[in-house]
Order: sequence, then structure tokens, then C-alpha cells
Amino acid sequence: MVPRYARPEMTAIWSPETRFAIWFEIEAHATDALAELGVVPKEAAEKIWAAHEAAGPFDIARIDAIEAETKHDVIAFLTHVSERTGPEARFLHQGMTSSDVLDTCLAVQLARASDILLADLDRLLEVLKRRAYEHKLTPTIGRSHGIHAEPVTFGLKMAEAYAEFARNRARLVAARADVATCAISGAVGTFANIDPRVEAYVADKLGLSVEPVSTQVIPRDRHAMFFATLGVISSSIERLATEVRHLQRTEVLEAEEYFSPGQKGSSAMPHKRNPVLTENLTGLARMVRSATIPAMENVALWHERDISHSSVERYIGPDATITLDFALARLTGVMDKLLVYPARMQKNLDRMGGLVHSQRVLLALTQAGVSREDAYRLVQRNAMKVWESDGALSLLDLLKADSEVTAALSPEEIEARFDLDYHFKNVDTIFARVFGEA
Amino acid sequence: MVPRYARPEMTAIWSPETRFAIWFEIEAHATDALAELGVVPKEAAEKIWAAHEAAGPFDIARIDAIEAETKHDVIAFLTHVSERTGPEARFLHQGMTSSDVLDTCLAVQLARASDILLADLDRLLEVLKRRAYEHKLTPTIGRSHGIHAEPVTFGLKMAEAYAEFARNRARLVAARADVATCAISGAVGTFANIDPRVEAYVADKLGLSVEPVSTQVIPRDRHAMFFATLGVISSSIERLATEVRHLQRTEVLEAEEYFSPGQKGSSAMPHKRNPVLTENLTGLARMVRSATIPAMENVALWHERDISHSSVERYIGPDATITLDFALARLTGVMDKLLVYPARMQKNLDRMGGLVHSQRVLLALTQAGVSREDAYRLVQRNAMKVWESDGALSLLDLLKADSEVTAALSPEEIEARFDLDYHFKNVDTIFARVFGEA
Amino acid sequence: MVPRYARPEMTAIWSPETRFAIWFEIEAHATDALAELGVVPKEAAEKIWAAHEAAGPFDIARIDAIEAETKHDVIAFLTHVSERTGPEARFLHQGMTSSDVLDTCLAVQLARASDILLADLDRLLEVLKRRAYEHKLTPTIGRSHGIHAEPVTFGLKMAEAYAEFARNRARLVAARADVATCAISGAVGTFANIDPRVEAYVADKLGLSVEPVSTQVIPRDRHAMFFATLGVISSSIERLATEVRHLQRTEVLEAEEYFSPGQKGSSAMPHKRNPVLTENLTGLARMVRSATIPAMENVALWHERDISHSSVERYIGPDATITLDFALARLTGVMDKLLVYPARMQKNLDRMGGLVHSQRVLLALTQAGVSREDAYRLVQRNAMKVWESDGALSLLDLLKADSEVTAALSPEEIEARFDLDYHFKNVDTIFARVFGEA
Amino acid sequence: MVPRYARPEMTAIWSPETRFAIWFEIEAHATDALAELGVVPKEAAEKIWAAHEAAGPFDIARIDAIEAETKHDVIAFLTHVSERTGPEARFLHQGMTSSDVLDTCLAVQLARASDILLADLDRLLEVLKRRAYEHKLTPTIGRSHGIHAEPVTFGLKMAEAYAEFARNRARLVAARADVATCAISGAVGTFANIDPRVEAYVADKLGLSVEPVSTQVIPRDRHAMFFATLGVISSSIERLATEVRHLQRTEVLEAEEYFSPGQKGSSAMPHKRNPVLTENLTGLARMVRSATIPAMENVALWHERDISHSSVERYIGPDATITLDFALARLTGVMDKLLVYPARMQKNLDRMGGLVHSQRVLLALTQAGVSREDAYRLVQRNAMKVWESDGALSLLDLLKADSEVTAALSPEEIEARFDLDYHFKNVDTIFARVFGEA
Repeated sequence: MVPRYARPEMTAIWSPETRFAIWFEIEAHATDALAELGVVPKEAAEKIWAAHEAAGPFDIARIDAIEAETKHDVIAFLTHVSERTGPEARFLHQGMTSSDVLDTCLAVQLARASDILLADLDRLLEVLKRRAYEHKLTPTIGRSHGIHAEPVTFGLKMAEAYAEFARNRARLVAARADVATCAISGAVGTFANIDPRVEAYVADKLGLSVEPVSTQVIPRDRHAMFFATLGVISSSIERLATEVRHLQRTEVLEAEEYFSPGQKGSSAMPHKRNPVLTENLTGLARMVRSATIPAMENVALWHERDISHSSVERYIGPDATITLDFALARLTGVMDKLLVYPARMQKNLDRMGGLVHSQRVLLALTQAGVSREDAYRLVQRNAMKVWESDGALSLLDLLKADSEVTAALSPEEIEARFDLDYHFKNVDTIFARVFGEA
Repeated sequence: MVPRYARPEMTAIWSPETRFAIWFEIEAHATDALAELGVVPKEAAEKIWAAHEAAGPFDIARIDAIEAETKHDVIAFLTHVSERTGPEARFLHQGMTSSDVLDTCLAVQLARASDILLADLDRLLEVLKRRAYEHKLTPTIGRSHGIHAEPVTFGLKMAEAYAEFARNRARLVAARADVATCAISGAVGTFANIDPRVEAYVADKLGLSVEPVSTQVIPRDRHAMFFATLGVISSSIERLATEVRHLQRTEVLEAEEYFSPGQKGSSAMPHKRNPVLTENLTGLARMVRSATIPAMENVALWHERDISHSSVERYIGPDATITLDFALARLTGVMDKLLVYPARMQKNLDRMGGLVHSQRVLLALTQAGVSREDAYRLVQRNAMKVWESDGALSLLDLLKADSEVTAALSPEEIEARFDLDYHFKNVDTIFARVFGEA
Repeated sequence: MVPRYARPEMTAIWSPETRFAIWFEIEAHATDALAELGVVPKEAAEKIWAAHEAAGPFDIARIDAIEAETKHDVIAFLTHVSERTGPEARFLHQGMTSSDVLDTCLAVQLARASDILLADLDRLLEVLKRRAYEHKLTPTIGRSHGIHAEPVTFGLKMAEAYAEFARNRARLVAARADVATCAISGAVGTFANIDPRVEAYVADKLGLSVEPVSTQVIPRDRHAMFFATLGVISSSIERLATEVRHLQRTEVLEAEEYFSPGQKGSSAMPHKRNPVLTENLTGLARMVRSATIPAMENVALWHERDISHSSVERYIGPDATITLDFALARLTGVMDKLLVYPARMQKNLDRMGGLVHSQRVLLALTQAGVSREDAYRLVQRNAMKVWESDGALSLLDLLKADSEVTAALSPEEIEARFDLDYHFKNVDTIFARVFGEA
Repeated sequence: MVPRYARPEMTAIWSPETRFAIWFEIEAHATDALAELGVVPKEAAEKIWAAHEAAGPFDIARIDAIEAETKHDVIAFLTHVSERTGPEARFLHQGMTSSDVLDTCLAVQLARASDILLADLDRLLEVLKRRAYEHKLTPTIGRSHGIHAEPVTFGLKMAEAYAEFARNRARLVAARADVATCAISGAVGTFANIDPRVEAYVADKLGLSVEPVSTQVIPRDRHAMFFATLGVISSSIERLATEVRHLQRTEVLEAEEYFSPGQKGSSAMPHKRNPVLTENLTGLARMVRSATIPAMENVALWHERDISHSSVERYIGPDATITLDFALARLTGVMDKLLVYPARMQKNLDRMGGLVHSQRVLLALTQAGVSREDAYRLVQRNAMKVWESDGALSLLDLLKADSEVTAALSPEEIEARFDLDYHFKNVDTIFARVFGEA
């Protein structure tokens, strides 16, 4: 975890305080269930909760000290609980194994992390939707291969991003369901010493579903899918961040990250306004994505389990969720305050001497009976002249002066192909698909 | 694509023949839609299909030759179609862009590949279910950290694998839906020169859903999710393969890959029966998984699109699907014919002098009023003696001779904790969860 | 292997013909060594070579047929050699194990592949050096964060690329040495049944060094390092390709990939000249890089060996080397024929109204006694005006009109900071460092 | 950074205190160089050092506060130095750019980290060498595919690990040299405002070499190579850790991680001694390895630089080096105190009824004139009987009772092939290769 890329709410999920609080809940709920089943005294179960209420937050230094001796985290925790609770503590952890606690706790943490990330995505979607409608018909050049192609609108760019993050939201909902399971099934998952109803009870209390079959652990294909999903989301962040970085290039400058008054862009070049937030997001995306492979390597545990996954999860559990939370919030801020320059967009649109309309002319020629090959040749030879003039010549003028072209199309017919609005007639249709309404 | 890890049905999806056939379908259906909209003559649309019927399979060498000259694959294809069709061919590709064809084709290919993989998973699930019921109550030692823990059944191992691959099946269904979209939206996705109804028509004919908003291309987050899902599935293959490899170790030998009469295990050591199929699956899993990161790196295309994703997909499209298909089939064969040795499982279960029952004794002591710490100490000191005797001493005998233990539990009470069936009482419950019936 | 990204010389290394030819050499040289040691008859060793000469190329279909039965590739090969050679063939493979042949063969293949890649790098370096000197003093804007910074020369960009690929060459030499080892040490690497001098003899004949200690296999850390090195080289390819893609953007257009007369850029927009080669290189770089992780996962073989690495290497051995060879050659072609536009570079340099000189003014102010903070503030306030004018205002004019600035610097002193050559005075020094001569 | 997997010395390299101390050294040495060149007053340079001596450690909270306002770390630092130093501070950072400081600092940090890692490797190598000689002739079964193959010695296993880590040491020395460069070349690397002799001076003071050509930054192929090298080293750690995990399996138990008296193996199964340290190392290896791809993705910065690499390096710089340092130390501890059980190794060697000698018999038959195919068949049919008896039958007895075998070999000749020492006759040779002496 890198503090500068961390926000408090998500970070808190991974604190020792939160972890021990969840462990206690799992253990105490399980004891309640055992009490209901008549396995342990009801009073003991009640006493455990009461003692916890009375004692307040756990003494993490004390737990650490015990673990240093026993080299076992759950035993250290239970020993500490025992110190706070008295003899009733012996009714905790009955028939359970450490992984019942650890894995169910991780499920709670990942579910909570997912909830924060879903809220992050909702905020991002809201901003993207707003910017999409704001610039629904703001003309800008569409580019393929970095080369001017045909006109689009800036709102369409935002709608594309919206649709992509809406998909990511749906994927994260699925990934959350995948990891939000509770396993309390004992040393090798057979419920030898614990009734399956305890698992069901605790799952219900914690808002988890029951793990249908565990070994000692919850199977790690679930977590692999979860972290892979975060990797996909981060790749979408990289895409939108890359778009902003391109738009902010000196030569393009169609949009800029908001630049606060006190901010210094460069120690050496004070005029510079750098897209540092989106560059940063590009790097953060690489990090979130890098959790994918170790999470997948964690799947093939030996037999009923080994513990090789544990250290990996100590890194990627916090790092991937905290970083993605930060990145989504940062991206939301960037998009919210993004400075958009429609005049510059129009200027860029015009700079190519009308080449962006070449496709329409090509089609018009074809429809006027010219073969595809000839039409292509006619348009290309005029387009090349414009291109080589660096925008000084006008495609419209050249076409009107080309006798082979005018043999097929009248000057008016040619001019009609240079109309910008022509390109935007289906924007409503696309918005209706993406947002449910035009 | 490595031929020895490829099966014909999946490989055929990626052949030039299939690709061009799909391209033709996309183009011809689109022309049908344009005809219905009155944009092109109905007779032309019909002629295109008829000429294709008459001409038969495409001449791939001819298309390659044209591409060598034009350096553009879709133009080369259309030129060839024009040669076969006559002047009506000019009504093909009206208002479309190459990516409309390429990306929709890839969607069809990935959907078909998914269907094969889903069928592969169904066959694997069927085999795993059969083996699970066959060995539902075959006792075997459960191991954590590679160390004997407590008894499980071999059927439970199979049920775990079944549940994991059932999850993978559900994930693949979702991933298939993610990539099975049709985009026919023109040069920058604005439908400037093509009616959105053409897209809807073609999508319907090809069994795809409509891409809500495309740029020039279908957004690559869809493909990233698809390949990440294949990576998760392959990691599950690695897990089950690793289990078999462990079970076949000389010292364990609880199961073996089927060994055909003509097979030679080693050029040097003729007695050897090596788990070469599951070792191979371990390697294949690494390869399928390795497609995940480049697929994610493909997401951040520049602006409306660049073509950096294309070369990546030429590798991972075929490689990941063909390899996963092969791996699933191989794994199914391994599990179908796996030689299972219950007698050896029992022998291994017994070799630890009853240590596997220590947890039960620990619990009994706790329930008899001994503190958790004392109970742990009592069990551990006897367990250690057994452990150090390499199974020569019996935990049951030692416990019955330990006065601190017998102060809390009678010999009969101790003996009752050494019953194997005790561990299997919830197997029905687990099977009911996994298979819907016990 | 994707045929369109493969060149014949590198592809041939991975053909069955080459593989079997290398296997034969290993086996026959080993038998020669055994003959020298008096273990097998000299005439037998000679007969083996002679029979091979007489029989010509191996019958691959026949070997495949035998392997289909025996399921063992080396046994199939030896059986076929035996068919061609007669009874003397029994003196082949004495005391050896399959991996002796397979791993030493892979070492030969990777060494040969390295030699091709080193030659590729040499050609690329030669082209980069030529372009560097050609444009040693061609002014162009240096950009950080995509924003104009200060002047550089196009030759410096080429020198940077040269230095980077020169480092990559040195790394590949080291990686080649890492994998070019010969192991002929028998079933578990103890030389139980074969004299270590056989290994030394074969190593010498094949131009390999002796593997100091093998198990059954050559340790895979060597191969991991090799493929990681290819991954680094491919990342450098991505860097240079990305530079070209940026330079070819419509708004930048300082350089372009060579565009051949017959080439069509887009089926829809005939005026487009897309940087498709460098975009393609970006994708190929992702693929070469993706071999790194599976190669690293291959290191942890079980005990003296398992065969999980083998399938991975069947993919990445050919794919990574063939793709990298193709990519280096393509990059060399791109850089060789790159269209460079100095006039456009100058135009871009000028478009910012002299902002690129702000750093020099900042320094001059500091040296004239203004505090760093004040100097920064003075330059920034004028720079911001230029920036907001989109290059219409001139920084030089504004500074000369700013009384706080002129209080410290005379108009002449300010003007002196706007000299372009000032920035290039150390180009010779840098060239001398990179190329050994200015 | 996960505290439990961190050691203080390596962690300190990445603390703000160390970073700012290095920044100061770079800046102050640069000012010294400028003073020598006569660009700034000598007294100012001396005053800067003196003020630093007097002021003591930097006030990190103060620097953070300034950065919160300026959003620029180097400016914040310089402002704080200015507060401590007085007006002479204006002679710091003359002609430099932030990256000059940041990248050179990273070079110092990675060089220091390398030195710690090299010392770690030295300690590991020393332990491996000691254990290798200790068990140079301790017989143990060699296994391929997890199946018993032929005898090796435990010392050979250690020698293999030694050779592998010795290679890793050499690789790290190369990787260290790759990243240990100093760049002080100004805003776009042209030395426009700073003399190249400043760079040379600072490089010399800091023990770095001069970066021949930088842009604004040190090229990231250097760092990619560095982290890839750490990835290879971690993969070797995984290999040795996996070996220990296998050896500690209940059924194998040829070695065990040292088990301290106070340690509890499992909360549920007190008899268990789990190889938790090596399992942990397996997971840590995955993490170190996962830095490789983002480090490679960092190479393709845009033009002269973007800052996307920075956030990645804030994670992987500390994480990969700290984790690898911890892992190497942990592995050294494991190997140092590893409990090795020669008696159990012998027991395992014997359990296969002599099958491990089958290869020698095969060879003896071949040498006695039996064809390879027949010899294979003879040995295999007897070996299969032994195998199926689970070690109850003896291969020696069966062979002596097989008339086809005895037709070629006398009983004495057969018995001679069952001698264990035969396998170890070249151990001295191998040790001499690995350690330079037998």
C-alpha cells in the first residue's frame, strides 16, 4: 500500500482493527449458532458478546506479542479474546479451523471493498453521463490510428466510456458474488466437528452465501476471478486516461486536466500544464492489473490446501482494492473537472482541408454508378494533394475541379457531402442505447 | 498454435476458410438489410448470395495474392468477391468499415469457440460427477500443507472439482455474452453512412447482440474479460492436474493416470509410470493464462481505435481457445480413466498411527472441561511421540496411558474419537449442495 | 506461430527437420566420444554417420507414426534411426536420457535463434546510427508529458534508441551464454552410466559450454532469464514504435512510415496514411513480453524434474524468437525508410510562441539575483498569457514588456535566451558517448 | 510493503528520510561541481553543506505540507532546503530538472538494494555450500515426474541450488550495473543549461556510472531488466522452496523445516508440522515476479518522457526489493536449519524393491548384445511385477529368475548392477565444477 494512492475508507477495511473485529464477529456468531443447536451454553455465547462490548477495541500490540511467540495468528487472537472474556472463551472456535475464520473474513473484506468500488463506479458513471449530455453534439474529429478520420462528438466519447464502465460495474457485481461466501466447515471441509447449520447461520448474519464445498479453504478460483475483474476495470481506466493524455498534447489540446492555481507543472518549465493525473492513472492501472497473474497462480493449492496464497493476498488484497478505489476516484475527479475546448476541437476538425468528408464523397460516387475501385482512385488522388499541402488546399475545391468527379456528381451534390450534421443524425439512437433515453 | 495441442473442430474456427465464410455472411446479410431499407436493389442482394453458392469456397491463395499487393485484407477479400460476383458486388460493404467485418467476425468466432468450450466443460462435469458418486465414501486422508490432516473421501475431492468447474462454466457463459456483439457502425461508429437497423439485422442473423456504442471497433474490455476468464479456467485445470500429480507420486500412489499397454514411460527407466498428461496440463494452463495480460494491454487503444490489438488477437484468439479446448478434453480423459486405488488410500490413512484423530480428542478434552491450552498441550505431547516414531506408536494407546488425559476422558470415550465414519456424516449434505441431490 | 509474423530463417530453426538433425548430431557426437573412450566400437560410430549421410533427411511422417504408438518422441526418433542404420544403432544413446537430447537440442536452437536476433539488432543499430547522424542537428521539440518542453534534435532521439538497443544487444549476448549449455548426464544428472567427458566432447562440437550440474534437465532459470531478456527487448521495440506513432499523428506529423504506391490505408477513408507497422509492432511487443511469466513459472520443476515446462516451451520457444525476429526486422525497415519532415518539426517548434525558452529565462533571472520563487512567478505569468493565446502571443515580446523582468535583464539579455543553437552545444558530447565518436 | 515480510535495513532505503538525504547529496554535489566550474560561488556550495550539517535531519512533515500546496515533490524539497539554508540555496538545482534528482536517487536506492540482495545471496550460497558438503554422499532417491528414478545424493541437490543461485548472483551484478547510472542532463537531456561535467562529478561521488544519453529521464529498459532479474531470482526461490515442501510431505518426510519449541502448527491438529515457511516463500516469489510485467510496461514512455512509470515504481521499487530481501533471508534460515533425515531417505530408496537399478540392468543387457528393444522389454516386464507388488517383490530376485535375462547376464553380473556407490562416482567431478574444488 502506497499512502499517497490510498483513501481512508478502503484502507480501513484492511487494518488490523477491522480484521480482528470481523474475526470476532465470525467466532461469536458461530458460538451463537452452536448455542442454538445446544452444543454450548447460551449464557456463554451471550457472555462472549458482553465481554467484548465491555472490553472495547482489541489490543493489537498484545495480539502481535502472542503471535510472535506462537507463530500462529488465529491462536494469538483467540488467546487474547480469552484474556478479555474469561473461561467462556473456550466455547469459541469449537470444531472450527483457522481458515474458517481467515477465509470468511477475507470474503467480508472483499465484499465491503466491492461495495466501495461499486459506489466509486456509480459516481464515475454519473459524471460521465453528465459530460456526455453536456457535449452530446460538440463536434470533434474522430481518429483511427491517431489519424483524422471522420467527425464524432465529444459526447459520444463520453458515452463510450460510460458504456464501458457500466459493463465493468456489472462484472464487479458478479465478481463480488463470486467471493462473498462463508466457509465454516472444519479442518478439511467435512463438517466433522461442526454442524453445517453453523455455517449457514454465520453466512446469513454476515450477508454472505454458503460455500457449497470447501476443503480447508474457500477455493481460490473465486479470488482469481475477482482480481482478474479488477484488472479489466483498471485497463478501462487506462483507456480513458490515455484518451485524456492524447487530448491534452500540445498539438491537440482539445481538453485539459483541471489546473489548480497553486499547482506548479514543472520545476524547470513554468508554462507547462502536464496531464499528470491521467499519466498517474496509467501507472496505477498497470499495478492493479499486475495482481491478476499471482491471483491465478494461487488457484492450484496442493491437496486440500497449502498456505502459499496467503502472502500473495496480504499484498494484493489491500493493494489492488485500495489502488483501484483511489484510481476510480481520481478518474472521476479528472472527468468531472475536465476542461473541454470545443473551439479547439473545431479548429482541429477544419485543419485537414475537408479530408474528413472523403468517405462520403467516395460513397456518393459509388452510388452514382462509379465502380468502387475508380471511386477510390478519384477520391484518393485529390485527398493526397490536400494531405501533402498540410491543409492549405481544400478537398471540396479540388473535387469540384476534377472533371472525372464532376462527370458523376454535380458541384451541389459534392458540397452536400461536406455537411457536419450529417454525421450526427444517429447520436440520439446511440444515447438511447447507452443511457436508456436520448 | 501447436498442432499436438489442437483438436480439429476448434482449429477449424480459426482457419482462413471459416474466416472468409463469416466475412461473407456479414457482408451479404448487411446487403440484405440495405435492400430491405431500399438502399440497394433487392436483386443485387440476391445475386450476391446466388453467385456465392455457385462459386463455392473462396480461393484463399487468390485473396492472399491481392492482399500482398493492396496490404489490406478486407479490400483484398472484397476484390475477390467482386471477381466472383460481378457488378452487383459494388453494393457490398456500403457505408461499412473494415472493422465492422473484422470485429463482428471475431465475435462470431469467439462465440463458437465458447460453445465448444462449454460442451467441453459439460463433458468434464459429467465425468467428475460420475467419479464423485463412485467414490462418494472412499476414505482417503485429507492433507493441508502436504501433511496428513483428517479423513475425507475421494468423492469429496471430485465434488470440489465439480463445483469449481461448474463455476467456471457460469463464468464462461457470462464471458461469451460479453464478446458476442455485432458492430456495423461505420468508420468512427456514428452510423454516418449506414442505418443502425443494418447492424440490428445482421446481429439477429448471426445470433449476436447489438454493440450499444462502438468507435470504429468493438471495445476491447470485452475481449480482456473473455481471455481473463479463460485464464481462470486454466488455473482450475492446473489445480486438478496438480492434485493428480501429487496422488501419483511414488510415495503416495493413491491414483494414476491410465497407462496404455504400448506406452513407454521413460527411455531409461522402463518401470516408470509418469503423470505426463497432468504435467502437460500444468504447462498448458500457464500458456492459456499468459493471454490474460496482453488481452488487458489491448484495452487502451488510442482515440477511436488503433490496430495494436490485432496482432495480439491473431495469436491469442486461436492459441488460448485451441489450447484450452485441448486441455479440457485431455483433463476429461484423465479423470474419466483415472486409476483410483482405495486400498492404498486406506494404507496411507493408517500410516500415521491415528494422528488424524487428534483434533477430535482435543475437542473432547475441551468439552470435558479442560482448558483449550491444556488440551492442546496434552494432545500435542502424545502426538509428537507418534510423529517421531514414524507411525510405529499408536496415538490411541499413548492417550489411554496418559494419566492427565484419562483424568478427563475414559478409555471408551477416547476410543470413540477414533471412528472414521464420524467424519463422513455430512457428505450427503455436501453432495446435495453441489449436485442438487445426495 | 503466426505465419504473417514469421521469417523463414528463424522459422526453420523450429522445424521438425532441424530438430531431428540436431538430435542426430548430439547422439552421433556422443557415440563418437564413447568410441574414443573405448566404450563402443569406433566402426559403429563411423557407421552411424555414414548411414545417416546415405539415408539423407529424416522421414518425419515415419517418426510421427512411431511416436503415435510409443507416445515417446526420443524413442520414436531412435527407432527410426535404427531402421536407417542397422544394428550399430544400439550404440547410440548409451547411458543417456531423453532430456540429454531434448535440452541440449533446445540450447542449440536458442543459441542459433540468438545469433539471428543479434544480427537483427546489428542491422537495426546500423540504421539508427545512420539516421542519428543524418539528423544530428535537425531541431525538433522535446516533449515531456506530451507537452512541449525544450528543443532537442531528431538525431538525439535516434541516439537514444541506438543506446537502448545497444544495451539490449549486450543483454542478449549474456542471455545467449546463459542458455547455451550442454547436458549429457543421464537419468538424474549423476553421470552414473555415462562419462562426463562425453558431455564435454559434445559441448565442444556444438559450440556450447558444459552444464556444471544438471538434474535430469538443464535448470530452467536459464530459460527464464532468456525469455525475460526478449521481453525487455520487445519493450524497447514498443517504445520506439510508440514514438513513431506519436510523430505520425495528424496534428504532429513530424515523421511517417514509408507509404508504398500500391498501399491502401483504409477501405473507407482513402486519404489516410496510418502508422500500421508501428501499431503492429506495439502488439507484437505485448506477445513477446507475455512469454516472460510462463518461462518464470517453468523454473520450479518438481524434484529432479517434471515435464510441465515442455508444452510451454513448444509455444514460447518458436513464438517469442520468431516474433521478435520479425519485429526487429520490421522496425529496422520502418526506421530505415522513415519519412522525416524537418520543416514540420520547425513549424511545431515555433507554434508555442517561444515558450520553450522559458527555462533559460528563469535561469537568467536567478543568475541576475532574483530569488528562485520570484523568477518562477515572473516567467510563469508571462508564459501563461502565451499559452492561453494558443501561440498567438510571443513570450519574448511579453518579457520585454514586463517591468519586473526588465529590472533584472536587459532586452538583449532576454533575446539571447531565445537562441536555438544554445540547446545543441552538447550534442557532440552525447554522440561521442553513444557512438564512440562525435 | 507488508511489514511482516520486511527487514529494517532494506526498508530504510525506501524511507522518506533516506530519499531526501540522497536528494540532498545529489543537489549539493552538483553545486560543488558548479562551483568548481566557476558557475556558482564556492562559498555558497560550502555553506549549503554546512547548513545541512547544522540543521540535521529533514523535517518530513514540513516537506509534505509544502508538497500538498505545490503538488510537486522536488520543489517542495528545495523550498524546505531553502528555509534551512538561506539565500545560498538559490545555487542549488541550477540547470537541473526534477528527474535528474528523482532518477539518480532511484539509481542510488536500487544500487544499495542490490548490495543488500548480493549479501543475502552470499549468505544463502554459504549455507547451501555447507549443506552440500555435509550431505555430499548422503544417498537419496532422485525423482522425475515425482516418480522414483535413480539414486542421487542430498548434497547434489544442494549443489544444484548453489549453482542456480550463483548464476542469479551474477545476473544481479549485471542488473545492478544496468540501473546504477547518474543522469544530470536537464529538462530534455541536452545539457542545455548544465555542463556534462556536473553529471560526471556527481556520478563519481555517488559511485554511479554516467548515463550516456538521457531524455528527461533515465531510460526504463534498465529498470525493466532489473525487475525481470529479481523475477528470475524469485523463481529460483520458488523452486528450492517447492523442493523442501515436497520433502516434508507426510509420505516422504526426508527433510523438515526447523520447528521451534513454542511454535503451534495448527489450531486444530496439534501434531502437524507444516512447511509454512517454504509455502510462504512460494507466495512471496509470485509477488516479486509480478513486478516484471509492469516494469516492462513502463519502458514505452511517450516522447522524451511521461510520468506513468512513477506510480508503478513507488510500489515495485520497495515491494520487490524488500520482499526479495526477506525471502532470501527466510530461505537462508530454512536451509541453514533444515532438518535432514538420511535414514528416511534410505528407507524411501529401498521401498521400490530395487526398481531404481533397472536402467543399469537395461544397459548391461544391451552391452551383452541384447537389442535395445528386447532389453527394454525384459527389464520392463520384471519391473512391472515389482511395481504392482508395491515394493514387496525384489527386482533383483525376479531378474535372476528370468531365463531370458540370465541367458545374457550371470547372477553376479546382475547383482553388480544393484550397487548404490556406482551412482556416486562422479559426485566429486560435479562438486569440482560447482564449487571449484571437490
